[in-house]
Amino acid sequence: MSELRKNVAGRPAPTEANGKIQVPYCGFRKNEFGDLVSAHKPEGRRAAPRIRSCADYPLRGDKRVSDLRTALEKCGLKDGMTISTHHHFRNGDLVANAIFDAAADLGVKNLLWFPSASFPCHQNQLKHLESGVIHHIEGSMNGPLGDYCSRGKMRGLGVLRSHGGRYQAVQDGEVPIDIAVIASPTADPFGNANGVTGDSACGLLGFALADSQYAERVVVVTDNLVPFPCVPWQIQGNYVDFVVEMEQIGDPSKIISGTTQITKSPDRLLIADYVARFVREAGIMKDGFSFQAGAGGTALAFAIYLKEMMIEEGVKARFIRGGSTKYLVEMLEEGLTDYILDGQTFDLDGVRSMRENTNHVNTSPFTSYNYHGKGNFAGMVDAVVLGATEVDLDFGANVVTHSDGRLLHGIGGWQNCLFSNCTILAIPSFRDRIPVIVDRVTTLCGPGELIDVIVTERGIAINPRRQDLLNSVKGSGLPIRPIEEIKQEVERIVGGAPAQPSLADDPVAIIKWVDGTVIDTVFRVNT
Amino acid sequence: MSELRKNVAGRPAPTEANGKIQVPYCGFRKNEFGDLVSAHKPEGRRAAPRIRSCADYPLRGDKRVSDLRTALEKCGLKDGMTISTHHHFRNGDLVANAIFDAAADLGVKNLLWFPSASFPCHQNQLKHLESGVIHHIEGSMNGPLGDYCSRGKMRGLGVLRSHGGRYQAVQDGEVPIDIAVIASPTADPFGNANGVTGDSACGLLGFALADSQYAERVVVVTDNLVPFPCVPWQIQGNYVDFVVEMEQIGDPSKIISGTTQITKSPDRLLIADYVARFVREAGIMKDGFSFQAGAGGTALAFAIYLKEMMIEEGVKARFIRGGSTKYLVEMLEEGLTDYILDGQTFDLDGVRSMRENTNHVNTSPFTSYNYHGKGNFAGMVDAVVLGATEVDLDFGANVVTHSDGRLLHGIGGWQNCLFSNCTILAIPSFRDRIPVIVDRVTTLCGPGELIDVIVTERGIAINPRRQDLLNSVKGSGLPIRPIEEIKQEVERIVGGAPAQPSLADDPVAIIKWVDGTVIDTVFRVNT
Repeated sequence: MSELRKNVAGRPAPTEANGKIQVPYCGFRKNEFGDLVSAHKPEGRRAAPRIRSCADYPLRGDKRVSDLRTALEKCGLKDGMTISTHHHFRNGDLVANAIFDAAADLGVKNLLWFPSASFPCHQNQLKHLESGVIHHIEGSMNGPLGDYCSRGKMRGLGVLRSHGGRYQAVQDGEVPIDIAVIASPTADPFGNANGVTGDSACGLLGFALADSQYAERVVVVTDNLVPFPCVPWQIQGNYVDFVVEMEQIGDPSKIISGTTQITKSPDRLLIADYVARFVREAGIMKDGFSFQAGAGGTALAFAIYLKEMMIEEGVKARFIRGGSTKYLVEMLEEGLTDYILDGQTFDLDGVRSMRENTNHVNTSPFTSYNYHGKGNFAGMVDAVVLGATEVDLDFGANVVTHSDGRLLHGIGGWQNCLFSNCTILAIPSFRDRIPVIVDRVTTLCGPGELIDVIVTERGIAINPRRQDLLNSVKGSGLPIRPIEEIKQEVERIVGGAPAQPSLADDPVAIIKWVDGTVIDTVFRVNT
Repeated sequence: MSELRKNVAGRPAPTEANGKIQVPYCGFRKNEFGDLVSAHKPEGRRAAPRIRSCADYPLRGDKRVSDLRTALEKCGLKDGMTISTHHHFRNGDLVANAIFDAAADLGVKNLLWFPSASFPCHQNQLKHLESGVIHHIEGSMNGPLGDYCSRGKMRGLGVLRSHGGRYQAVQDGEVPIDIAVIASPTADPFGNANGVTGDSACGLLGFALADSQYAERVVVVTDNLVPFPCVPWQIQGNYVDFVVEMEQIGDPSKIISGTTQITKSPDRLLIADYVARFVREAGIMKDGFSFQAGAGGTALAFAIYLKEMMIEEGVKARFIRGGSTKYLVEMLEEGLTDYILDGQTFDLDGVRSMRENTNHVNTSPFTSYNYHGKGNFAGMVDAVVLGATEVDLDFGANVVTHSDGRLLHGIGGWQNCLFSNCTILAIPSFRDRIPVIVDRVTTLCGPGELIDVIVTERGIAINPRRQDLLNSVKGSGLPIRPIEEIKQEVERIVGGAPAQPSLADDPVAIIKWVDGTVIDTVFRVNT
């Protein structure tokens, strides 16, 4: 029987989830190189799928079957299996719904859906959760599915992982995937596939990499079949069992935005300006440096401000980490960076650039984020700019729940990025009159040990652990303030600390740390 | 205790080799798609290296250590371990010798050297074989090391595998690699590496792919260190433990030829002409077709003749498989093929093209040849042109031993390529007055079931199993003759069948088939 115990961060962690033993989050240690690293030591060996033989596949490489249902039958779909999908189509995905509709038709029950993330377009799955076709979801639940989980309606516990944590869980055999279904904007009959061309072009398919490598059965679904070879083969057909053609696998207008939008809010623009100035004043912005920022309005504005400063000072980056947008592509094409190392493309310029620029490089959760590899790219990034729903006085932060306790967001690459040499949270000091800096975040997703700087429109708080950063910006004129002071000021404005969420005692989801340990638990919301 | 038993091809196969149980070659079956496939059914799961953690690697990605010896020590090198290397530097490799010199300095014994192939430049290893630093070699032994093995001097049995068979053996855990050392023309401190740039540029590093993925420890050695990221990362740093800089890792003049040479022999040119005409007359040369030919003089001449015919008839290939040369690159750049799918570059034009042309695509033994994957590329090639040292009346062929029994060549991708839709051996009918067509080949490397056509300067023999090919060239004017007739004619000319080699009863090496079974045994040569 599972019980809740406190982990070293003082957060409750169940000893078991969905029938699997859980290891509580262990905090940090210093390694032989002087780096702050996970204190958890993994044991055992990587997952090992069954050995296959070419003898069981068509010699001339044509793996097409008539439809998704047939593919699932040939994969041996049965009760209790795990089916995985990727989220490169974001809110425009048409495949994940079709899979579970087909599974329902086949009368199969108690499936574990293991998406790299789910979106509002997947609310179709609510009926399969209700009927028991889907037992539970492990993966980000953005919007309605998160709300459903928050209300305690899901049969199993939600398990949220970062992009890197998902790779780690598959690689380490924590989540054995029975059937991976990979929606592919372009594919050939052998199963080679990519995201750079076709009506549903999404740039790349990195979130499906682990699935292709480790799932027992792999189905590629496409609406743009080309003769062998499909080049580039971001997904290698040598891992693929069946290929299915569908009329339409995604809604292009929801997969990729035509253009990404910079914030117009004066407060957010001020935050972006502070972040860019901080990166310059702290001495991070120098020849050969690197940074990562998301595709949110504030992050885009930051990138534009930083770009201006780079031009002014004649500084060139070695690499910029995507999610890519028009603005990053411009920096590459104008020679302000040698490379974009990209994990997902957010707009049409990102997709085009990945197709055309050899220095716009396709990365994956394996290269970038997997904590159970021999290093990853995240620690090599000089500065990363991220968001958060809440942050506490210890610099610990939340990205998955709102202050009312509802689970409405996924982790994405957020946890993985915290290993950057300078992690900056760019956040408004309050939202809808609710302060963002709190005594204790509703859900701990990122430990304060790894979060270096909080930038709000009311000032910049530097983690006292980073005396080097405090020293570097002395005399810069930037509004450096203790985090407590910003918190107090906001509470004065909005009339006090936010109300505690009304939560029941029963867990509805767990939050994994990058190493597979449980960093926090999400509880049912009283409604 | 090992004993020799006859496999289904009537060839002796030991029940055990180097302490490991061996499965005898099982022949063929028809699969559900009507294809002739291996009758051997593999069991079990893929090899599973230990799970690693970023916690044990430098967070900022600098994995450099001072020298190869230090790297080997840090890898925990000890007696009896397996060290692997690749052969992309061919006869210009300087790294493999340095590894075993360092191992000798460290006083380590009984190592298994597991190269993807060895060359005359590696005769330095003879002293380590003599002293016991190296226990035995598994991998192709071209020249002096093969001769050493043939004379029964190696402590263990040689094990020869095709490129695909080597990937299969690593993937399936038959050969657990303790330490892979990957000589890399360009690399970054994180261990990302490629072969397209640098003084030792060799094009690609595909032969080291399995080693990087499955070895417990991986060392990248380079003489061209670049700042992170090394793009493209043909070898992913996330698999790499240590990076070593060396003054020089290869001799460029021996890694890559400046230009590849077409044969000038009238007989060989005639063979090339017959092969090209056969490919055209059999209806293989049509829009969207594919072919593979090596870099030998006859194969190059064939490619040039075929190119002329393609231009004449306005035919374009979908893809050409490399080993790439200037001649294939010209076909790509002149629009005669959509793609080159390349496993190794043989000349400077091949290297340049792989660097510059996005449609000159890097492949690996995994994508192209691994028989224990979900299909591979070999079966999708319409025609392949190969060589052989001997061929028998059943169309079985030998590529590793000479008619005197000496083991002087590796298998390369030869066995893997036999799965092409039309396998053509282009061979002179005799060499040094020794007939090439024999009653029974000295060593069986490729079963006659997969060999479709023998082209000699005295005529073309089509395997009677391929009635479709016999029909397709009827009335073509090509000199189609029964294989027996060509054999008799040659024996009349040279004065009879070749003498049987003088061999002892003790095995010195085994030949693996693509599925890991033992297809034949090589015996000690009496000297």
